[in-house]
Amino acid sequence: MTAKLLTVEEALAKVLEQITPLGSERVDLLNVLGRIIREDITATMDVPLTANSAMDGYAVKAKDLEKAATDNAVRLKVIEDLPAGYLAKSRVETGQAIRIMTGATIPEGADAVVMVEVTKKSDSDFVEVFESVKVGQHIRLRGEDLQTGDLLIKAGTKLGAAEIGVLASVQRPFVKVARRPIVAILSTGDELVEIEEPVSAGKVVNSNSYSLAALVSASGGVPIVQPIARDNEEEIRSAIQASLAADFVVSSGGVSVGDYDYVKPVLDSLGADLKFWRVSMKPGKPIAFGLLAGKPYFGLPGNTVSSMLSFLLFVKPALRKAMSCLPPWTMPIIDVTLDSNASSKGDRRTYLRANLRYQDGRFYARLAPRQGSGVSSSMLGANALVILEEGVTALKQGNQAKALIINDIF
Amino acid sequence: MTAKLLTVEEALAKVLEQITPLGSERVDLLNVLGRIIREDITATMDVPLTANSAMDGYAVKAKDLEKAATDNAVRLKVIEDLPAGYLAKSRVETGQAIRIMTGATIPEGADAVVMVEVTKKSDSDFVEVFESVKVGQHIRLRGEDLQTGDLLIKAGTKLGAAEIGVLASVQRPFVKVARRPIVAILSTGDELVEIEEPVSAGKVVNSNSYSLAALVSASGGVPIVQPIARDNEEEIRSAIQASLAADFVVSSGGVSVGDYDYVKPVLDSLGADLKFWRVSMKPGKPIAFGLLAGKPYFGLPGNTVSSMLSFLLFVKPALRKAMSCLPPWTMPIIDVTLDSNASSKGDRRTYLRANLRYQDGRFYARLAPRQGSGVSSSMLGANALVILEEGVTALKQGNQAKALIINDIF
Repeated sequence: MTAKLLTVEEALAKVLEQITPLGSERVDLLNVLGRIIREDITATMDVPLTANSAMDGYAVKAKDLEKAATDNAVRLKVIEDLPAGYLAKSRVETGQAIRIMTGATIPEGADAVVMVEVTKKSDSDFVEVFESVKVGQHIRLRGEDLQTGDLLIKAGTKLGAAEIGVLASVQRPFVKVARRPIVAILSTGDELVEIEEPVSAGKVVNSNSYSLAALVSASGGVPIVQPIARDNEEEIRSAIQASLAADFVVSSGGVSVGDYDYVKPVLDSLGADLKFWRVSMKPGKPIAFGLLAGKPYFGLPGNTVSSMLSFLLFVKPALRKAMSCLPPWTMPIIDVTLDSNASSKGDRRTYLRANLRYQDGRFYARLAPRQGSGVSSSMLGANALVILEEGVTALKQGNQAKALIINDIF
Repeated sequence: MTAKLLTVEEALAKVLEQITPLGSERVDLLNVLGRIIREDITATMDVPLTANSAMDGYAVKAKDLEKAATDNAVRLKVIEDLPAGYLAKSRVETGQAIRIMTGATIPEGADAVVMVEVTKKSDSDFVEVFESVKVGQHIRLRGEDLQTGDLLIKAGTKLGAAEIGVLASVQRPFVKVARRPIVAILSTGDELVEIEEPVSAGKVVNSNSYSLAALVSASGGVPIVQPIARDNEEEIRSAIQASLAADFVVSSGGVSVGDYDYVKPVLDSLGADLKFWRVSMKPGKPIAFGLLAGKPYFGLPGNTVSSMLSFLLFVKPALRKAMSCLPPWTMPIIDVTLDSNASSKGDRRTYLRANLRYQDGRFYARLAPRQGSGVSSSMLGANALVILEEGVTALKQGNQAKALIINDIF
């Protein structure tokens, strides 16, 4: 307690410093949603490849229709009928038109399209047009969507439906994306029982493994849930060693300085290069981070809320960096108005679980009524963490505060 | 063009009216992230099951320490050492203490915990305490997290990490969730080539199947991508019939009134109960919706942007209702300030692709520079659609507008 504790920012910088990108894999386009692309995508061809019609109508020479009007039909000879997907066999000459469907390539000789709505088919070979057109009207130009050489998607982008559509357009059936980091999840403690085991007095269900596994998946990683390790050096040592098959190890529990907190001594005995084991934050002060056999190791506190918050603050940004996401790797912080009073001891920066709602141009933060680090229900519906800085002991309803966004607000 | 077109809201109401909930399935807790729960979850036991220590320290009788102070150590006999997960064998009597770890059940006779930091182990059997404590101090009460009978998670909630942790706490290894709607995706058109085929003049890559499949997945459904159906009645009929193995059918292309638009006539010939086939919106006016053999059928327009927008406006809310999500099923609309000028013909409500940024308490909308319905790149990075109502032809930079949120903003 004597040495000054690291701030969250200092601790996060120490984490990120140690994170290097993991490898890539080729994934087919139907399975890349939400993945991080590892290559720049440029257009390798113009899309569309030819100028085409934006309307169902007639491909014409605009000059022919200069005098066309409601009371002055111009009669053109229809020389061909052109559906989308085909090229015209003929060239449009003066006095002629080609019937054209949306998306069909503009025939040679034509310089405009007249909408079917302002025409009348007079007999099988002729059409009457009742409106003039400008050169280029209703024509989509070659490359109007994508032009050869355009940088379409930057490496590090998360792929959504729009990016996937564009990747299809430039004919990429497979894409190079960051492989998902494999994250071993390890809960320790003699008090824990597995989800299907009876709970007796003094015992508690191992819920951390499930909430942390969900956070890993939501962050783009693959969770590997280890069996509970009991509070003895031997079991914790072998569990940690087994976890090293993963890319990251995240344990919860056993990182305090209590008599039965074996994680830190075991890490020391395994030769871990621990960068820190406490951070000035609440909940969640005891959190260990270091490298063990070259793998990032996060020793999170055992309380449900503390473990989730420290995951969001430290592990998630590390996973994002490991996948080579474009920065920022951290979650955004915005200004909010408090809907209720907030308090803290003021000895450390405090993160309070809150639900934000947006109304009349402002974000209002409603704090979960009970903020204990063991109150897992305080995370239900929480989409933000209101930040009370060190030294701040109280904020009142109506006050402004900073909030870290941890979930969808809209 | 004569009958008054339906508004987006009228059309959506007609869609939702036809949607009934699909079935449920039991999914294990490691695989329910993002799924919609179909049962209310109440706490079946108190969590924690017993009062326990919030700190590493000593379980004591507060009365014994009334006079404890920095300069007045009170000496207590340590009668037991209690790790988390076990119950004390002895009862704390006057003058006694039990060494207790965080999470361990409070022993009988004790009514407070004194932190280890304000104590000194004088010899193996005794501890000196330098601070008084209040009754209940550092004790987490039984049921402090969850109390038997509490409604924890409402049916219709999307499961995130917090919900999953709570489900573990109440020992639910399996959960009843909405099964994922299976959505057949069908692109039609002679101009289309598959993603791996050569593109020649007049042809265009079938990108819609991929962007729509991604939208289905992102909406919680399972996409089934059908091969391209060519522009003839027979092929479109058999493709649509094959698609009816799914829960929903979403086709793109062929719904205009052009000579080669076979989707509507085929639907009619198959006896579809079409509720509408045009909506007053831009892009995307031609959009068919109805029931075919009892299955919801969406005939989206063929343009990339139009198909994506009409999916977001009509199909996504329908999928949410089919999964029994809690309403609202539609995406939220917020006020934004335009970063650039916006224009429209004013004949129909227009949706302009935009990227929102939040700054100094305001959302600013930067419009994609090219807004053509064929410009798929206008969807890249778009997280909102700025709405220009029918009759509005221009808005200027700095004006307020409404925007529909379609993607993460933060």
